[in-house]
Amino acid sequence: MIYFDNAATGGVKPDCVLTAVAAAIKAGANPGRSGHKLSLACLERVYACRKILCEFFGGYSYDRVVFTKNCTEALNIAILGVLERFAAEGATVVTTVAEHNSVLRPLEFLKNKGLKVQYAPLDGNGNIDVDALSKLVTQNTKAAVVTLASNVTGCSPSVKDVRKVIPQDCLLICDGAQACGHITIDMKKSGIDALAVAGHKGMLGIQGSGALLFSERFNPDPVTFGGTGSESYNLQMPDFYPDRLESGTDSYPAIVSLGEGTLYLKDRLSEHAAAIEDMTKTLIYGLSQIRGVKLYSKVNPFGIVAFSLENMQSEMAAYNLSENFSVCVRGGLHCAPLMHKALESEGLVRASVSAFNTPSECQTFLQAVKELTSV
Amino acid sequence: MIYFDNAATGGVKPDCVLTAVAAAIKAGANPGRSGHKLSLACLERVYACRKILCEFFGGYSYDRVVFTKNCTEALNIAILGVLERFAAEGATVVTTVAEHNSVLRPLEFLKNKGLKVQYAPLDGNGNIDVDALSKLVTQNTKAAVVTLASNVTGCSPSVKDVRKVIPQDCLLICDGAQACGHITIDMKKSGIDALAVAGHKGMLGIQGSGALLFSERFNPDPVTFGGTGSESYNLQMPDFYPDRLESGTDSYPAIVSLGEGTLYLKDRLSEHAAAIEDMTKTLIYGLSQIRGVKLYSKVNPFGIVAFSLENMQSEMAAYNLSENFSVCVRGGLHCAPLMHKALESEGLVRASVSAFNTPSECQTFLQAVKELTSV
Repeated sequence: MIYFDNAATGGVKPDCVLTAVAAAIKAGANPGRSGHKLSLACLERVYACRKILCEFFGGYSYDRVVFTKNCTEALNIAILGVLERFAAEGATVVTTVAEHNSVLRPLEFLKNKGLKVQYAPLDGNGNIDVDALSKLVTQNTKAAVVTLASNVTGCSPSVKDVRKVIPQDCLLICDGAQACGHITIDMKKSGIDALAVAGHKGMLGIQGSGALLFSERFNPDPVTFGGTGSESYNLQMPDFYPDRLESGTDSYPAIVSLGEGTLYLKDRLSEHAAAIEDMTKTLIYGLSQIRGVKLYSKVNPFGIVAFSLENMQSEMAAYNLSENFSVCVRGGLHCAPLMHKALESEGLVRASVSAFNTPSECQTFLQAVKELTSV
Repeated sequence: MIYFDNAATGGVKPDCVLTAVAAAIKAGANPGRSGHKLSLACLERVYACRKILCEFFGGYSYDRVVFTKNCTEALNIAILGVLERFAAEGATVVTTVAEHNSVLRPLEFLKNKGLKVQYAPLDGNGNIDVDALSKLVTQNTKAAVVTLASNVTGCSPSVKDVRKVIPQDCLLICDGAQACGHITIDMKKSGIDALAVAGHKGMLGIQGSGALLFSERFNPDPVTFGGTGSESYNLQMPDFYPDRLESGTDSYPAIVSLGEGTLYLKDRLSEHAAAIEDMTKTLIYGLSQIRGVKLYSKVNPFGIVAFSLENMQSEMAAYNLSENFSVCVRGGLHCAPLMHKALESEGLVRASVSAFNTPSECQTFLQAVKELTSV
C-alpha cells in the first residue's frame, strides 16, 4: 500500500508523537480544571506546547496560541470572531480563488451579514495573482485572508509580497493547513496577524489537533461559549486569552501530539522540505512523460502534485489506483471550488507525499499511472 | 495516588479503548475526504460509531449523530444553532440553576440577541425544582435546557417529569456531560430532542471526543463553516446531516474511542452504576461521620460527592489532599456559578469516582479527610 494522501492527513507519525499521545491518554487528568498534581502537570504541558508553537511560528506571545480541533475551527475563530465586526460596517475583505471551503464558507456566511468579499484570481502561471489582489484593495479593506499553499496544486504566494500590497492596518489572516510543517513561517517578520494551523498534516500531530496563533491587535470574540476553568462566577467568557477562545475540555492528547510533532520538526524542517521537493520533482517529471496526463502543479515543498487524465474522471482514477494498484490518492474538488473554476478543471487527482514516503514509492506510483492510462 | 476527579475527565480507559485509539492513529487516513481504501474504511468506522451511539441513547437516526470535540461544542451547536432563531422572536427558554457554564454562557450570549432566559431554582432537597420550572413555562417558551445530572452535586431531575411539564412543541435539550455512561438514557422514550454527550468522562473515550444526538424536528444551523468532503462546489454548508454540522477533519481516533467506550459500557452500565452508587454511599456515610464536614450530595450513580469543610476553603482542601495525601479531587465553583448561589456555597470539594475506583480507595480518602479536618 502506498499512501500518497498526506495533504488530507499525514500517514506516518514519528514514534515520539505516538509515545507521547499514549502517555497523555493515560495521564487522564483535565488541564486547567482542578488544582491537583495530575491536573497541574497537564496544564503545564499545555502551556509548554503553546510556547513551542509560538517559537516555531515566530508568534507574538504564548497566550495568543489557542488550541482547536482542526484548522477549520481555527479559521472560523479568526474569520467569524473578528470579521463579523467588519461585516456590520459593510467593510471589504480580500481573499483568493485558491482558498479552501474552510475559508470560503465562513466568508460567504458573513456576506449575509454585510461583509463584502473580493476574490483575487490566479495569474497566467497558476499562482495567486498578488498584483491583482493589490488592485482589489481599497480604503474599505479591513482584512486579507490568504492561503500559504493551495491544497489543490501546492501553489503558494509570497506572504511578504501580500503584506506589502495591503495597508499596514489591514489584518492578514493566513490559512496554514498545507504550509505549516513544510516551510519556515515567521508571523512577526511576515506581518501575519493570524495563522491557522492543522495539526494532523505537515505538523505530524494526530487528528483532533490544530491551533490559531494571533497578534496583539487581532482580538477574536468567542465563537463558542462554555466553561474555561477560569472566572467560573462569570456568565460571560473571560476577556483574556487563551481562555476566551477555549471553552470546554481541551484534547490534551491532541495538544501533546502537536507539541511533540513540532519539536520533532524543529531541526528537520529543511531536510523534510528538500526530500519532499525532490519527490514532487520526480513525480512531476515522470507524469509529464505519460501520454494523456495534464499537470497542474510545479515542484513544491508541500508535497502536492495535481493532475488530470484524458478520458478518465479524477474520482475514477483515484478509485482505480486504490483498487488495482493499492495507491491512495484523492480525486475530486478537494473542497476548493473556486480554484477549479480558475483552473478550468472539473476535478483533479492529487498525489501528496510526506517526508516519510520514498523515491521508490514514487516510481511504483508512476508505473501505476502509466498502466492506468494505457488501459 | 487516588484519582477521584472522574467527573472532570475519566481517569481509566478500558484496554479496548486504548488499543482501538492506537490503531486509529496509525490508520492515518481521513474519513470522508478521499475515495481510497484506507479513507473509506475510516468513513465506515465513523458511521458504525454513529450507529453505536444512536442505539445506546435511543436516538432518532444515525445521521443525526454528529461528533464534536467535547460536550461544550455539542451544547453550543444545540443552543446557538437552534435557539438563536428564537432569540430573534424574543422567545423564552427555561433552564435551571444547576446548569454548567457550557449551557449558561451560550444562553447568556443569546440574551444579547433577544432571547429571554428563565432559571428554575432548586427545591428544599437540593434537587432541580421541576414544579417551579413548570410555572415558568408560558406560550412563549420554545425550549427547555436541562442537565441530566449536576456536575456539582450529582442531583438529577427526572427527565420524564420535565418532559411532562413542558408543552409537546417545546424542544427539550439535555446536557448529558455527567449522566452519559452512568444511567440509561432513551431519547425517544423520554422525548429528548437534543442530547449533548461528553466522550471523556462516563463514556470512557479520550479527551477530544463528544457528540450531539438530535430529533427530526431539531434542525441546528451550523456554528462553524468549512469543508465537509461533500458538495465541495457549494459555498454554503450542505443542508443535510451530519455533514451540515461537521466541518473540517474529524478526530478519527477520538470518534473511535467513543464508539469503543460505548460498546464496552453496553452490557456493563448497571454493574458500573451499582459499583459507583455503592462508593458514593460509602463516601457520604463516611464524610457524615467527620466533624466539620458539610455534605451537598446524596447517593447517586454519577459518582459525585460534594462537601465543604469548616474553616478551610475548597481549593485549599483540594490542594492539601493532593499535596499531602496524594488524592486528586477538585475544589472551587466547578463552572456552575448559579448552582453555588442556590446552595449558598462559595465553593465545594468534589470527589468523583468511576467504576474503576475501589472501596478501599474510598476508605483511604475518608482517612485523609479525617486527618485534614483534625489539623
